[in-house]
Amino acid sequence: MTPTQRNPEERPVAALLAPDIQSLLEESPADVAAETEEMHAADLADVAELLPEEQVLEFLAALPSARAADVLEYLDEELRAELLEKMSTRQAAELVTQMTPDDRADTLEEIDEERAEEILSEIPAEQRRETEQLLSFAPDTAGGLMTTEFVSVPASMTVEQALEGVRAAARGGRREAMYAVYVTDDAGRLVGVLSLRELLAAPPGSRMSDQAWTEVVTVGPHADREEVARVTSNYDLVAVPVVSESGHIMGVITVDDVIDVIQQEQTEDVQKLGGMEALDEPYPTISFGRMIRKRAGWLSALFLGEMLTATAMGYFQREIDQATVLALFVPLIISSGGNSGSQATSLIIRSLALRELQLSDWWRVALRELPSGLALGGILGVIGFMRILTWSALGLNDYKGHPNLVAITVGLSLVGVVTFGSLAGSMLPFLLKRVGFDPASASAPFVATLVDVTGLIIYFTIALIILRGTLL
Amino acid sequence: MTPTQRNPEERPVAALLAPDIQSLLEESPADVAAETEEMHAADLADVAELLPEEQVLEFLAALPSARAADVLEYLDEELRAELLEKMSTRQAAELVTQMTPDDRADTLEEIDEERAEEILSEIPAEQRRETEQLLSFAPDTAGGLMTTEFVSVPASMTVEQALEGVRAAARGGRREAMYAVYVTDDAGRLVGVLSLRELLAAPPGSRMSDQAWTEVVTVGPHADREEVARVTSNYDLVAVPVVSESGHIMGVITVDDVIDVIQQEQTEDVQKLGGMEALDEPYPTISFGRMIRKRAGWLSALFLGEMLTATAMGYFQREIDQATVLALFVPLIISSGGNSGSQATSLIIRSLALRELQLSDWWRVALRELPSGLALGGILGVIGFMRILTWSALGLNDYKGHPNLVAITVGLSLVGVVTFGSLAGSMLPFLLKRVGFDPASASAPFVATLVDVTGLIIYFTIALIILRGTLL
Repeated sequence: MTPTQRNPEERPVAALLAPDIQSLLEESPADVAAETEEMHAADLADVAELLPEEQVLEFLAALPSARAADVLEYLDEELRAELLEKMSTRQAAELVTQMTPDDRADTLEEIDEERAEEILSEIPAEQRRETEQLLSFAPDTAGGLMTTEFVSVPASMTVEQALEGVRAAARGGRREAMYAVYVTDDAGRLVGVLSLRELLAAPPGSRMSDQAWTEVVTVGPHADREEVARVTSNYDLVAVPVVSESGHIMGVITVDDVIDVIQQEQTEDVQKLGGMEALDEPYPTISFGRMIRKRAGWLSALFLGEMLTATAMGYFQREIDQATVLALFVPLIISSGGNSGSQATSLIIRSLALRELQLSDWWRVALRELPSGLALGGILGVIGFMRILTWSALGLNDYKGHPNLVAITVGLSLVGVVTFGSLAGSMLPFLLKRVGFDPASASAPFVATLVDVTGLIIYFTIALIILRGTLL
Repeated sequence: MTPTQRNPEERPVAALLAPDIQSLLEESPADVAAETEEMHAADLADVAELLPEEQVLEFLAALPSARAADVLEYLDEELRAELLEKMSTRQAAELVTQMTPDDRADTLEEIDEERAEEILSEIPAEQRRETEQLLSFAPDTAGGLMTTEFVSVPASMTVEQALEGVRAAARGGRREAMYAVYVTDDAGRLVGVLSLRELLAAPPGSRMSDQAWTEVVTVGPHADREEVARVTSNYDLVAVPVVSESGHIMGVITVDDVIDVIQQEQTEDVQKLGGMEALDEPYPTISFGRMIRKRAGWLSALFLGEMLTATAMGYFQREIDQATVLALFVPLIISSGGNSGSQATSLIIRSLALRELQLSDWWRVALRELPSGLALGGILGVIGFMRILTWSALGLNDYKGHPNLVAITVGLSLVGVVTFGSLAGSMLPFLLKRVGFDPASASAPFVATLVDVTGLIIYFTIALIILRGTLL
């Protein structure tokens, strides 16, 4: 799991405890373990983040190694990497060995490769093999998310024997959460699952083959992490088994890691929707240079696209020269198209992400956005029309003597531009998905840029028709 | 839980099975229960959604009532409400009684109030009381999310006795998932927790008071659902106990409901970011009128704000009349400000939501966005400057004889507008949060509207300074 960075104000417990633990570390470090025994590792990690840097290592050393490993797992990624650099290879190996297999692999993946090799070479052979296997999967696949600690029993076992197996595993120092027992056939293939609750409720003498659910929801090791999240959420699971093509269970993904995936995906989507590359790092800690690079790419691309507006405006320069009053409404009209497009695109992106909509639904959406755009454009058109007539009546602007014609031009343009914005904004995510891009890249700025040029063409074309012979 | 609506293409299992089940229903309905026994209720719900409407009731009637209740929980909200309208009150009451308490309350909350009262009056007194208690909490609070089924034991019990209690509860037909045992003192107050795994690993003769963790992470019944999600995710929990002010455990929130909360919150955020009210219903099923209302409010508000651009442009009408070439770059310049503002606002909204940033960090962000804006504005400024000189060199536009001055004006304006956009976009979420609004309302369109007027003022002011005596 990747813990979320939190600020001191957000950690009242930790802020209260940090000074106590600090003085305890100075006066009697031997008592630290007992004093903090009942606290959640996440809170201890918060305390560690508030300690002076040189004391964090002392703090970890004062805890039993399994406990220190837990705290390390909850620490901010950067601090964790730094600590693993600073401590002795032996100490690092000891802590890393105590981690759950998935967190161990994630932790080693974060740090400097050479240092990771050093640490890996010092951990026991079994854990090393396990870790190397996990490291061979891409981090955003089921294989990269899973842990290799789980309990499986043969289908021929009785419930009582299975329960003994669970007890032995739970006592044997396995540290991953345990919610279910997986049942395998003679060839070791996964054939069933039983939750701990169901196992406890089952008649002790019955066979696992009779008690287990045989329709097991599983994912393959190369399944995308979004697919894992979807399966977990659709079936209300707390753990998803990862199964090889041959039907053998390779590991289990626990729900806490799925929640992290959902939140990371959401962060990426929000940032893409804002018209930039996903940062992949928290805003407060990413370096200035990396942040600028993530933002400058899209910003420049949008700018190049938006340059077409200058070309379009240049094309109508004669009309602007003749009736500069038209220029007044350019920002109002194109921004309305962008806003309606932004609404449509965020609706569709989210519906696609939730699988409420499929690629093949594009025409149904188009048939819905067409009247939506007309209705919304009609509302704005009426407001715009009234605004111009009111200003004219109040004597604030005479619109070169043709307030009615200008009002009609602006009103009709709004209907056209908002309708086009709604259609373009709703179709862009489908188009991006169709050609293999992430629909979330159909950001509000991207849609606005698309709509701006077309909006100008719609506006000036309507103006040419309505104002010909008067202003133009 | 509120199941996500899925389309037939997304349900290969269900699509394959639906015809089989349909013919089975017609030929030998008595076999339906046995044939579907091993299937996940979520899959059966998918099958039900693919059946002809008149057959869904037959399908539910063919299943054991506990199973039918599960299927009902996974059905699309609208279909579920419709079925509960159509079936007899007795059948509805039987199914609803079989639901877990939290889902029972959620289901009754969704349907017509009168019908809910009818059904409620037919369910057993104990379940009715339980449901009425749950219905008294707002649905977006911890009380509204919790279930009242959980296992608690006195601290004085031995591990063996507690395990027997768990077995009895698991066998006693309680249907909610069970992950932990809660430990209470003589006055019934929550004093500890032990996961099922830990309970199984503990020495049978030891006391629960010696085995349980005494620092329990809890929430109050009125805690906001976002707070529940944050606690669950920070501490990697699968269940969060809800505890009254007096320290008594009132219920438990399970992680599947937390995942639903996280996804609903994300849907709301994405829709708000798109510049509209959250729909609160799936896009494919919301009525046209409701959708238009949710979109028209913000769209009109933004339009009224954007009208200030016409006022600002009117203020500079003399300059536009004199140098219509200036009008060409209006869309390019103001959209660049909007785009940089959109990037900044989505970064900050997400960081605030993840608690990476606090309200008090606003000045740190401002100090970061100022140089970011200058850097990004510098990049766009150089591109814009080069573009104008290139067009002039190619003879595409003579910029009224002053290409260099126009290029300098546009370049400097871009630096100013993008810097202002980044600052305004990053500060708006803080401001909204400070005055008690949702920071996610600082949508890309909202920021763009704010930035557009200022952008025009920056542009024309710079033009007045640089072009005075030449074009102006």
